[in-house]
Amino acid sequence: MINKLVEKIKKTGAPIVVGLDPMMKFVPEHIQKRAFADYGETLEGAGEAIWQYNKALVDHIYDLIPAVKPQIAMYEQFGIPGLIAFKKTVDYCREKGLVVIGDVKRGDIGSTSEAYAVAHLGKVQVGSQLCSSFDEDFATVNPYLGSDGVKPFLKVCKEEGKGIFVLVKTSNPSSGELQDRVIEDAGRPLYEVVGEQVAGWAEEVMGDTYSYIGAVVGATYPEMGKALRKIMPKSYILVPGYGAQGGKGKDLVHFFQEDGLGAIVNSSRGIIAAYQQEKYASFGAEHFGEAARAAVEDMREDIAGALNRR
Amino acid sequence: MINKLVEKIKKTGAPIVVGLDPMMKFVPEHIQKRAFADYGETLEGAGEAIWQYNKALVDHIYDLIPAVKPQIAMYEQFGIPGLIAFKKTVDYCREKGLVVIGDVKRGDIGSTSEAYAVAHLGKVQVGSQLCSSFDEDFATVNPYLGSDGVKPFLKVCKEEGKGIFVLVKTSNPSSGELQDRVIEDAGRPLYEVVGEQVAGWAEEVMGDTYSYIGAVVGATYPEMGKALRKIMPKSYILVPGYGAQGGKGKDLVHFFQEDGLGAIVNSSRGIIAAYQQEKYASFGAEHFGEAARAAVEDMREDIAGALNRR
Repeated sequence: MINKLVEKIKKTGAPIVVGLDPMMKFVPEHIQKRAFADYGETLEGAGEAIWQYNKALVDHIYDLIPAVKPQIAMYEQFGIPGLIAFKKTVDYCREKGLVVIGDVKRGDIGSTSEAYAVAHLGKVQVGSQLCSSFDEDFATVNPYLGSDGVKPFLKVCKEEGKGIFVLVKTSNPSSGELQDRVIEDAGRPLYEVVGEQVAGWAEEVMGDTYSYIGAVVGATYPEMGKALRKIMPKSYILVPGYGAQGGKGKDLVHFFQEDGLGAIVNSSRGIIAAYQQEKYASFGAEHFGEAARAAVEDMREDIAGALNRR
Repeated sequence: MINKLVEKIKKTGAPIVVGLDPMMKFVPEHIQKRAFADYGETLEGAGEAIWQYNKALVDHIYDLIPAVKPQIAMYEQFGIPGLIAFKKTVDYCREKGLVVIGDVKRGDIGSTSEAYAVAHLGKVQVGSQLCSSFDEDFATVNPYLGSDGVKPFLKVCKEEGKGIFVLVKTSNPSSGELQDRVIEDAGRPLYEVVGEQVAGWAEEVMGDTYSYIGAVVGATYPEMGKALRKIMPKSYILVPGYGAQGGKGKDLVHFFQEDGLGAIVNSSRGIIAAYQQEKYASFGAEHFGEAARAAVEDMREDIAGALNRR
């Protein structure tokens, strides 16, 4: 799957992943109204609204981008109907040829982590049958519990040809509270210690040029991105924090290798709610898909320009 | 909800939470057969099997214990039908008067962490309505992303009178890889740094005697439990790792306060799959519920004995 991701990034010229994080306030009124008319102001109505919103977004942008990243929390908040919308979104995006990164940030120990790996990337045994559950292509993984929590994912990645992105340095303001603390016996911050673990795991599950095991490093910390790029040479870096969180094209260049590969940058509300920004307001809420398409094109230019200028 | 938990622990004399982690290999054959006959060897069949298994277990033990802790990974692996079984289990246990600790280990940033908090403990806005999604009483939370990831949970806990247990020192063998590393400027290991954060959050959301904000500390690390007990005086400690993972009654005493409160010990397979142990084999698979009941009683004696001997 990492090979497919790299190939699609080359083909589209867009090292971009669109975060399908459908907060209700992003969903245009006409879609909400229709869903609530059919299902009431219920969890089912909310699930229908976010599914219709996602579908229209994907229809407008799928040819421009290699991948999408649905954030499962935004679906989980609507209970079972929300998770049905998540599953429909994953399946629809895969049908459209997109690589699907499930932003699930799961992580537990032993057999429990294995259950999460199976839930999101693998197949589960039911009697004599093997069944797929959510079946994303990649998942994000939290490393706080140590390698016990990550190894079951490595196993499933090997079996299924799928991948993970391990949280190394997250994009949020307080990520430094733990991640930046200097580890005494290592003389390095925690995020570098985790980065070194990722580099080791990456060697174990290699694709053609990059590993199935990648890392999450926030756009909001470009200097740390530079250091981590060197520590994890075989890993793709998934970079959140562009756009709404303040990261800009020029902040991103150090996350990439010299050949322009090695990183994929996420934007969520900057794309999916582009129609709510002044810059794209002229599209109108009815044409939120076209606004999203324009925002993807602008983001591609911004990143390409920054990479060309370095 | 922490007041209810403390009250129920006093009433039952059992500082015990039963982990409802229904791995398929624990589900007795007669239950699997019936479910597969009705729904086939499908995710629906698996969901039905684990729900029937849980329901029978709860019917046999609900009067002995204050709380249950369903591990969502074990349901998530069966996709939507698995999560429907999770939701049914949560609702059924609450109907039976049990406190439900959702072992979800979620954690993300800002609005995403808020969505998880709403999904598991709060209510979500849908149009003009407020809807409940999974609606557990407590949830477990991963702290790796810093306080941005935890604060949205504190907000929902305050609003809803619910609680969380933050992962501080987990029970698994590799938990030390990150959690035990000494932080240079603090001169203390990471788990103590996190424990101090928990103590601060705990002050913000107090119940009558204990805080709504607790911590997870593994039974397998009794000396660390002793230190953390002092660092977090207002927090209940949820203690996994008893039984199958190797923790024994005598390892647990330092997790408790002098009055015998302050900790609640989890056992999962040791209870729910008791019928598979030699000790309880005479019950037979048909009577797995009675075996679980006997195992709860034995665990209560083991802990009470250890607390009396200190």
